[in-house]
Amino acid sequence: MNYRTIRYILGWVMKMEAMCMLLPLLCALCYREYGVVGSWLWCIALCSAAGFLLSIRVPENKAMYSKDGFMAVALGWILMSIFGALPFVFTKSVPTFTDALFETVSGFTTTGASVISDLDSLPRSIIFWRSFSHWIGGMGVLVFLVALVPMTGAGNFFLIKAESPGPIVSKLVPKVKSTAKILYSIYIALTLMQLVLLLFGGMEFFDALTITFGTAGTGGFSARNSGMNDYSSYCQIVITVFMIIFGINFSVYHMIILRKIRAAFKSEEVRCYLAIIALAIIVISVNCRHIYASLSDTVRHSAFQVASIITTTGYATTDFDKWPELSKTLLLMLMFFGACAGSTGGGIKISRIIILFKSIVKEIRILAHPRSAVKIRMSGRIVEHETVRGINVFMAAYLAVFSLSVLLISLDNLDFTTNFSAVAATVNNIGPGLSKVGPMSNFNVYSIPSKLVLIADMLIGRLEIFPILVLFSHYTWKK
Amino acid sequence: MNYRTIRYILGWVMKMEAMCMLLPLLCALCYREYGVVGSWLWCIALCSAAGFLLSIRVPENKAMYSKDGFMAVALGWILMSIFGALPFVFTKSVPTFTDALFETVSGFTTTGASVISDLDSLPRSIIFWRSFSHWIGGMGVLVFLVALVPMTGAGNFFLIKAESPGPIVSKLVPKVKSTAKILYSIYIALTLMQLVLLLFGGMEFFDALTITFGTAGTGGFSARNSGMNDYSSYCQIVITVFMIIFGINFSVYHMIILRKIRAAFKSEEVRCYLAIIALAIIVISVNCRHIYASLSDTVRHSAFQVASIITTTGYATTDFDKWPELSKTLLLMLMFFGACAGSTGGGIKISRIIILFKSIVKEIRILAHPRSAVKIRMSGRIVEHETVRGINVFMAAYLAVFSLSVLLISLDNLDFTTNFSAVAATVNNIGPGLSKVGPMSNFNVYSIPSKLVLIADMLIGRLEIFPILVLFSHYTWKK
Repeated sequence: MNYRTIRYILGWVMKMEAMCMLLPLLCALCYREYGVVGSWLWCIALCSAAGFLLSIRVPENKAMYSKDGFMAVALGWILMSIFGALPFVFTKSVPTFTDALFETVSGFTTTGASVISDLDSLPRSIIFWRSFSHWIGGMGVLVFLVALVPMTGAGNFFLIKAESPGPIVSKLVPKVKSTAKILYSIYIALTLMQLVLLLFGGMEFFDALTITFGTAGTGGFSARNSGMNDYSSYCQIVITVFMIIFGINFSVYHMIILRKIRAAFKSEEVRCYLAIIALAIIVISVNCRHIYASLSDTVRHSAFQVASIITTTGYATTDFDKWPELSKTLLLMLMFFGACAGSTGGGIKISRIIILFKSIVKEIRILAHPRSAVKIRMSGRIVEHETVRGINVFMAAYLAVFSLSVLLISLDNLDFTTNFSAVAATVNNIGPGLSKVGPMSNFNVYSIPSKLVLIADMLIGRLEIFPILVLFSHYTWKK
Repeated sequence: MNYRTIRYILGWVMKMEAMCMLLPLLCALCYREYGVVGSWLWCIALCSAAGFLLSIRVPENKAMYSKDGFMAVALGWILMSIFGALPFVFTKSVPTFTDALFETVSGFTTTGASVISDLDSLPRSIIFWRSFSHWIGGMGVLVFLVALVPMTGAGNFFLIKAESPGPIVSKLVPKVKSTAKILYSIYIALTLMQLVLLLFGGMEFFDALTITFGTAGTGGFSARNSGMNDYSSYCQIVITVFMIIFGINFSVYHMIILRKIRAAFKSEEVRCYLAIIALAIIVISVNCRHIYASLSDTVRHSAFQVASIITTTGYATTDFDKWPELSKTLLLMLMFFGACAGSTGGGIKISRIIILFKSIVKEIRILAHPRSAVKIRMSGRIVEHETVRGINVFMAAYLAVFSLSVLLISLDNLDFTTNFSAVAATVNNIGPGLSKVGPMSNFNVYSIPSKLVLIADMLIGRLEIFPILVLFSHYTWKK
């Protein structure tokens, strides 16, 4: 393992976090929250100090391999979360460090699960930091570093591979650095578009900014206690559309920029993703028609919730825990599906679901006609055997982590629906679950050990399991 | 497809069912249930007629392949269930044909889920038939036919392969027919042993026989309303031990007969199976200690429930739905694990769980040391790539069937715990679930369409998914 390069990268992660904290400091100054300015300065000083100490010596040999990429990403995210939790502790926004860590990991992993019950009593700079952490974590911290910082060269690909979601990590252009730049440009452009559209709808600037961060990162932290209820139908529709947009594979937007419109619309994953959304909205609208006054209200609420859950954002305009069981079960299924690979969304990812489904169909075809040669294809291209194998191992590990987590948190003696949906909501980076962790409740119903399990689940879910497993495996550390 | 041979085999299945029905007829005569003798005679006549009509013409070309095996098994089980439901209808033991079919499929698939609330009001011959159907389905109907009837020769292997549970179907001896005979001999010997031990404990003959059928097939139908509560601790312990025994791969008993004792104890699957049972008993005993008066009671109840659930039998000596959440969640996990491959138990099977777990460890090792050559081994032997692939496709199909079923039955608007555990209990062939389908309730809470979904789940679970999927796939039926 190339410890020096990993240390160097971790240093840059800390320096970047210090820079990111300048924005909430600015926010504290704007809103005259002078009581917390000191806390922010302390946090920035600590992050900077750690960053400079770790990166002071530039490593001579910057060569990195797959394992180094995994380690840098896993350690980077853990370090970033620990330091990111400091503002919550210093400003006394939450009672314990575990809660602060829960909130921060929930932010960076774009989960949006919260342990804070009264948002309106918190400083605005803290609310800003929570939502901004969604935006940072959405596209990825190391993708950002690769785009901007002259780091490791050949190792960049392994960093992006370890951090980006989905079964296949494709480079948009031959150079990894340029790929990262393109991704962030699209991300910033779409973020600005949503911000402008929300401001146009009359939303207050602070709310528009934080909600946009939460949408872009598919996170789901709110700006105030009332959640989405204060905003107009127009704003809710804008948010619905942008949640769906941020759940699409960003390579599609790159194709559109390159005017390869036909190729963009050929993406099987995106077509399937949109079809699932449409179908779910129809089923839920029919199933919940009796709850709302008008058909347009029903469709608006069901579209918002479907978009929010499948993209793993987690905003809610209505208490879907009160919906009929069919709609709730459908939402729970969408929690697992997740968004497209290469988007800011979490979950298993639509492309994995499609390939798994195709492998079942392939098996049936082979059983029915043993001599037929069947290949799994995706958007017309043959899916390599290694990719299918990777998805299968991912699913096995996913199920193992999932079952073990449900078992561990069941020690708190809450009901099965709560436990099952709490793990589903964290490991898939959604936010709210059902029953006692439903959209109108929060995760404070759990004890500290259970919160630690759920924190691990959020990280495992965001980094797609293996970076965290490799970090804690004895195979990694023995010679 | 060789339609004529499939038809011929189906004919033999019906003839065998007619023969099996002679036993409940005898039972009706013994217990002087003259009111239902006519019903039994009608059922036997119908089964025999169908059997002779289907098998009157011996096919010239008896060659069979994988697909024919799948079709014969899927159609055989469906036909057998439909005719097996007739006694319930003719004796008016259940109100509708769907209920009769539910009860019969639950019997043959060794599930043990019931829609009958008052057992004690039914004729004993019907209770006998319910429990006997567990015994018939446990080791498999076509395995029985292969053992006794001169059928197809080369096709026998495909019949056994399609009907036997587990990722690898191994022949104990080179000849398939002899393998089937050995399996049934062991099955009969163990059944007799349990029967004698229960009679020795003072259990009434009728109860001892039906409970032994339910244990041997890992089914779980009771003989009376009081379930297990009337029986002594000694009898409960005998049942616990035999449930565990019938959940072990029968090839181990064959090895023991051949005096290959060391090889038998080397089986990784059996060791892991016993370790899981021991661990689960300890955890649940600690977790439930406060519920029962003495430590021995606690251990006895927890051992009984663990053995009952992991082997997918489904008997209960206590209402485990009232246990603390940790114990309930652990039981729910064991529902999925299931027993050993090549036993009469259901579920995913321990060998599949082990291989999936090993594939995760292999992935971590490869990520940590990319140049290391790692092979998955089981009991010392290398697991072939094709076996791993088969398990992965099985898991994908399992998850798809599972999610779709939960979604479909959620239309009845029962709570998520009930729906999730109902599907878990049927697709894994266990019987009772949690909440409204807990051990002290029954499946009558569901509507007819949901019952049909659960009937399909029981068959899909018992035949390990693909026979049923192949039967209903359009690939099978197009040229």
